[in-house]
Amino acid sequence: VGFGHVGKAFLGLVREKREWLKTHYSLELRLQALLVSAGGLFSESGITPRDFTEKAGPDLNLSSLWRPGLNVVSALGKTKPGIFVECTPSNIQTGEPGLTHIRDALKAGWHVVTANKGPLVVDLKGLRSLAGKNSLALKFSAAAAAALPTLDTALHSLAGAEILSIEGILNGTTNYVLTQMGEGTGYPEALREAQEKGIAEHDPRLDVEGWDTAAKTLIIGNSVLGLELALGDIKVEGITRIPPELPIRARQEGKAIKLLGRLGRSGGCWEAAVSPQLIERSHPLFGVNGTNKGISYTTDSMGTVTVTGGKSDPRGAAAAILKDIIHIFARVQ
Amino acid sequence: VGFGHVGKAFLGLVREKREWLKTHYSLELRLQALLVSAGGLFSESGITPRDFTEKAGPDLNLSSLWRPGLNVVSALGKTKPGIFVECTPSNIQTGEPGLTHIRDALKAGWHVVTANKGPLVVDLKGLRSLAGKNSLALKFSAAAAAALPTLDTALHSLAGAEILSIEGILNGTTNYVLTQMGEGTGYPEALREAQEKGIAEHDPRLDVEGWDTAAKTLIIGNSVLGLELALGDIKVEGITRIPPELPIRARQEGKAIKLLGRLGRSGGCWEAAVSPQLIERSHPLFGVNGTNKGISYTTDSMGTVTVTGGKSDPRGAAAAILKDIIHIFARVQ
Repeated sequence: VGFGHVGKAFLGLVREKREWLKTHYSLELRLQALLVSAGGLFSESGITPRDFTEKAGPDLNLSSLWRPGLNVVSALGKTKPGIFVECTPSNIQTGEPGLTHIRDALKAGWHVVTANKGPLVVDLKGLRSLAGKNSLALKFSAAAAAALPTLDTALHSLAGAEILSIEGILNGTTNYVLTQMGEGTGYPEALREAQEKGIAEHDPRLDVEGWDTAAKTLIIGNSVLGLELALGDIKVEGITRIPPELPIRARQEGKAIKLLGRLGRSGGCWEAAVSPQLIERSHPLFGVNGTNKGISYTTDSMGTVTVTGGKSDPRGAAAAILKDIIHIFARVQ
Repeated sequence: VGFGHVGKAFLGLVREKREWLKTHYSLELRLQALLVSAGGLFSESGITPRDFTEKAGPDLNLSSLWRPGLNVVSALGKTKPGIFVECTPSNIQTGEPGLTHIRDALKAGWHVVTANKGPLVVDLKGLRSLAGKNSLALKFSAAAAAALPTLDTALHSLAGAEILSIEGILNGTTNYVLTQMGEGTGYPEALREAQEKGIAEHDPRLDVEGWDTAAKTLIIGNSVLGLELALGDIKVEGITRIPPELPIRARQEGKAIKLLGRLGRSGGCWEAAVSPQLIERSHPLFGVNGTNKGISYTTDSMGTVTVTGGKSDPRGAAAAILKDIIHIFARVQ
C-alpha cells in the first residue's frame, strides 16, 4: 500500500532478489496486490514482480477500486491474508492514512510491515495490542532508521542485557548539514546543497527542526524500552539556531556537533530529548559523518554497543522491509 | 563445563539477573551441574545460583566423578538434557577437550552454547550437522568476539541482504598495542603494559601473531557465509614485525594501523586474511581504539553496517552466553 520511492524500491528489490531468496531462505514471495490512493492492481493468483514493476510504472493503469466507505482490506476482496506492507507517506501528527490501514489490516488477519513512522508515533501501543490479540506480527524496522538495525540490535543482539541509555544520530539530512558546517559551509548553503543532492526534502522542516529524529527516538524508546512516550513528551531542539562558528570551532578542537536523539534515566524515570550536542573524539558516534546514521546502546552487562551505517535511501528502507518479512516468515514457518 | 574466568562470570551473571530474567523473558534458569577437570557438583533437582557461587569458590568441594572412559554426559547421569554451556580453554589446533564435550552433549540431546573457539575452528561443519540431525541448537556468540554481536548482526539484522565483504578488528590486545604504538610507545613496552593491565595473556603469541583474529575470522566466515575454511587457508600476519615509526606516521597523517580480519571475494572465490592495514579516517572502524573491537559488513542492499564496542572481558562473554540461551529459549518455547 503506497507506491512512492520506498514502495517502488521494495518491489524492485523483491524482483531483483527473487532467486536468491529462494536459495537462501526457501522463501518465495508472491505479490498479491498494489493499492494506491487512486485505485489498485491485484490478482488472487498472485502477480509476479515482473508484472508489478512493468505495469506499475508511471503509466500504471489501475482498476478504480475506491468508493466512499471502502477500506484497503475490503478492496483486497477475498485475497487470503498474508503480509500487508504499508508505505504511504508519514504524518507524525495524525498517523493517517497509515494508521487506519494498519488497524484494518490487523483486524482482518494480516501481518503488518510498515516503513511509515506516523502510525507508530501516534499509537504504537494500540497497534501492538491489536497485533498481539490476533497473534499477528507488526514489524517496522524501515520506520526506525531504514537499514540501520536500531531495533534488531536492541531486541535481538542485546538480549539479556539491560539497556541503561541510548544515543542516536538518526537523521541523515541534519548530519550532512552539520558535517558541512564543520568544514566551514554556512547553514543555508549546506541545506541548499543537501536539497540539490536529493538528501533533504523540499520542505526540510521536519528534519532540521528535529522532529524526524524525535519520531524515531519515540519509536525506539516505546518499542525497545516499553515506554509510552508521546511526541509532546520529548524536548526537541533542531539545528536551525546553531551559531555558524560552533561546528567549525568544534572541528578545530577535534570534537563535533551532532544532533542526537537521547533516551536516559533521570531520577528513576526515562527521559527523551533531541538536541545538538558537542561530542568528543572518543564518543562512539564521533565518526558518523555526512548522511550516515548510528545508534549507541549502553548496557549493564555488554558495555556499549554501537551500530553505524546502513543505507538510508529508499533501497535501504526496502531492504529493511524485506528483512522484517523474512523474520516473520521464520516465525510462522 | 569449565570454571575459569568465563564460567565464573556466567554463574555470577545468572545469579545477578535471576529476577530480571523472570520479569523480562519469563525465563527461570535452573543450574543443574558444574563439571571441571577434577570432578563435578550437581543435583537433579537443580542447584540455585546461590549454592553455585558459594560452593564453587576456590574451596569448591567437588565430588570425584571422573574415572577413565567417563565422558561429561555420562557424568551428568540421569539429568534431563537442557542447555550445555562449554567454557573450557580454547585449543584452536585440536579443539579439545571442548570438541569431545560438545559432540557427546549433542549426541545425548543437549542444546549447546559455547564460549570456546577451539571446537568451532576444528569442526564447525560436523558439529552443526550433528546439532541439525538432532534438532538441537548450537550457539557460540561468546566465541566470536564476546559481547560484540558479530554473528547476530550478520544473521539477523542483515537478513535478506547479501554480504559482499567483511572486515573486523577482532582482538582487543593487538588493538590496544597498536593504539599505544600510534601514540609513540614502543611495541615491547605497549605489550608489557597490556600484560600488566590484564589485557594480554601471559603468553600473548596467539594474539600478537594474529591467530586469535584468524580463529574468529574463520568462525564468522564459516557460520555467516557458509564457507569451509580451515586455519591453514587463512593468510595470517600479526603485529610483531610492524616498524615502530609506522603507527606514529599513520597517526600524524590522520590515519591508523589496525589488525584486520578480512573476508572478501577474489575471482568468484572467498578469501580470508589477517594482517595489519593502514586505514583512513573515513573507514568505519577508524575510531575503534584501545581494547575495543568492531566489525563491518558491506552488503548489496543495506550498504555498509558496522557494529563496534561490546565488552570483551569475561562478563561480556558471559552476557553473550546468556543471550544465546535466551535465543534458544525463544525458539523452543
